[in-house]
Amino acid sequence: MFPEMTDLKPYTPSATPAAEQSATPQTGIVMLNLGGPATLDDVQPFLLELFADREIIQLPFQRWLGPFIARRRTPKVRGLYANIGGGSPILRYTEAQGRGMVAKLDRLSPSTAPHKFYVAFRYTRPSSEDALRAMQADGIKRAVAFTQYPQFSCSTTGSSLNELWRASARTGLRDAFRWSIIDRWPVHPGFIEAMTETVREGLSQFAPADRSKVLILYSAHSLPLDVIDRGDSYPQEVGASVQRVVESLEAPNPYILAYQSDVGPVRWLGPSTEQVIRRLGARGVKQLLVVPIAFTSDHIETLSELDREYGEVAHQVGITQYVRAPALNDRPRFLEGLAEIVRDHLESGALYSTQYPVKCAGCTNPQCRNILNPASSAAVQRG
Amino acid sequence: MFPEMTDLKPYTPSATPAAEQSATPQTGIVMLNLGGPATLDDVQPFLLELFADREIIQLPFQRWLGPFIARRRTPKVRGLYANIGGGSPILRYTEAQGRGMVAKLDRLSPSTAPHKFYVAFRYTRPSSEDALRAMQADGIKRAVAFTQYPQFSCSTTGSSLNELWRASARTGLRDAFRWSIIDRWPVHPGFIEAMTETVREGLSQFAPADRSKVLILYSAHSLPLDVIDRGDSYPQEVGASVQRVVESLEAPNPYILAYQSDVGPVRWLGPSTEQVIRRLGARGVKQLLVVPIAFTSDHIETLSELDREYGEVAHQVGITQYVRAPALNDRPRFLEGLAEIVRDHLESGALYSTQYPVKCAGCTNPQCRNILNPASSAAVQRG
Repeated sequence: MFPEMTDLKPYTPSATPAAEQSATPQTGIVMLNLGGPATLDDVQPFLLELFADREIIQLPFQRWLGPFIARRRTPKVRGLYANIGGGSPILRYTEAQGRGMVAKLDRLSPSTAPHKFYVAFRYTRPSSEDALRAMQADGIKRAVAFTQYPQFSCSTTGSSLNELWRASARTGLRDAFRWSIIDRWPVHPGFIEAMTETVREGLSQFAPADRSKVLILYSAHSLPLDVIDRGDSYPQEVGASVQRVVESLEAPNPYILAYQSDVGPVRWLGPSTEQVIRRLGARGVKQLLVVPIAFTSDHIETLSELDREYGEVAHQVGITQYVRAPALNDRPRFLEGLAEIVRDHLESGALYSTQYPVKCAGCTNPQCRNILNPASSAAVQRG
Repeated sequence: MFPEMTDLKPYTPSATPAAEQSATPQTGIVMLNLGGPATLDDVQPFLLELFADREIIQLPFQRWLGPFIARRRTPKVRGLYANIGGGSPILRYTEAQGRGMVAKLDRLSPSTAPHKFYVAFRYTRPSSEDALRAMQADGIKRAVAFTQYPQFSCSTTGSSLNELWRASARTGLRDAFRWSIIDRWPVHPGFIEAMTETVREGLSQFAPADRSKVLILYSAHSLPLDVIDRGDSYPQEVGASVQRVVESLEAPNPYILAYQSDVGPVRWLGPSTEQVIRRLGARGVKQLLVVPIAFTSDHIETLSELDREYGEVAHQVGITQYVRAPALNDRPRFLEGLAEIVRDHLESGALYSTQYPVKCAGCTNPQCRNILNPASSAAVQRG
């Protein structure tokens, strides 16, 4: 289950495998994600960026309390990354996804080819600024901001997009590109079919006689209830993703949806994945397949939390076979799926989904749900 | 929008339109629902039953506190029912649904015909005991417990099923019928297509130029967070229903999902429908279509809460056109849908859905997820 980490290197702009991509790209695809520290020395800077982002965490006196919490958590989080090979594999997987996606996309959408991908992580390099500068150097005019989170949340995709527009202003590149946005894809067949493959592979690790009875625990990252109460669309879209994977699986396995990774004193959306595992064990469940439904690449929440931490919990409560389905990572069906998502977006001519303009009912952030320099003259709605 | 209430009468067993149904039924379909007080004098008994149900409300010293709260709330709730015509129309609609369903089902599934429907309300007459005794009188052997809640929750369908099995014991009819269960149907095409019709009718009330831009607010009954944290599957299934209706609608309207009807001091699942309406109004939204996504018949939560209470809120905050999509009620496509759901269930030979045996991870109720006297010898799984 653990990927090899030995070839991980700290990011430098030249590490982007530009040579494998076309030299004269017509369309730039900016892959937006959280990112993760590539090495142990990147952990503290990563946490400092994370705890400074008021779109994901709102603290009193954030300018002082944010760095304080980030520094205090650094040793523990360094230890977690040390245990999974010394850093996050997210850049490596994102680049593999980008390469596969672009190769397929050039065939699927010749009229917008050649395509080139750029990585824009929210809390580590390559940043939005890195991606924008690389696009400028390549002479890109048409750009697609492509979130790598299947389900929309203001705290993930929303934050990444707002940062992309701010970075465009900071770098003086506000007018350099014509933008459109792929802001969510919770039930796109390219995602659902690839997810279904991962569930099948997880199930294949159980004895054939047990396979159709194994309980499947879909796990998504949780959100604080204050975010839910503002009207974040994430839980509705996660529920839809789960339903579609269950249907696509065409298997009789029962399932549960739970939410992981809650921290701190505030109340988060439940049920908690860890609590569910404890309670299932206490009730005598012996076999469990856990499926990460809201992440596309392995990272600390899969490799450390699901595999190690909750794996240990499962062991303690008597679950004898605890399997975690593989993340999508560089699975060929997923690379195809990413290309299909971009192809469908480009063919539609839409600037963004019909849901993108709908601000959370309780939103107070004037930055939200904007688009810079839209690619078409279609009216830009505001919700 | 308001149905005529003048023909409502208090329930007596003979009010069931048996003459319209076959005299020698082969299959009994028990339609499970909450029920509602048919007259103002039924309000207090209804509330007493509701506040005595520990599967929906858990109070300290429930045997004393439940009746106390029920009696204290009676005058206010009587007033609400007086305002919507003097009682709940749910029995009238359930009987219309049953008649339409059975007529269609006899054609769709001749091998199990004639079918006859029976109504079993949780907190009012006709009760589970009424339904069971009527089935016995009709000589029914094969029975289907058919929840009228599209999405499963322990506090609705779970409570109704547990009561059905208890009532079977109380009436000495434990062995009288061979049972199977339709425990959920959140994305059945018969439900989704009928729901989509109601949304289209709601949209048709807006001027053609505005129709494609109207914000749609899907509203489901909320649940206390303690129920969510135990692992109730309701929010996942509601999210799936909404996604499917949005897709089926094939319209560009943006949407929000919110939860209504939270009461008391505990925290409920959000965002709150009322809060969302207030906030949308404050942001300048002028047109809103509200769609009840988790109810099949008009009742106090649509006729009073959505239409009157939230309609007044919408007016106060400057929403100039507030429309509530019609409930499914006796819509022909929904009657067909109910028949299709039962037909698919009977054809499958399943005792219940693959999800039914999955108890909430935090469940402590040994009654939950049982089936009495199952119709087939298929193994009965427990989750």
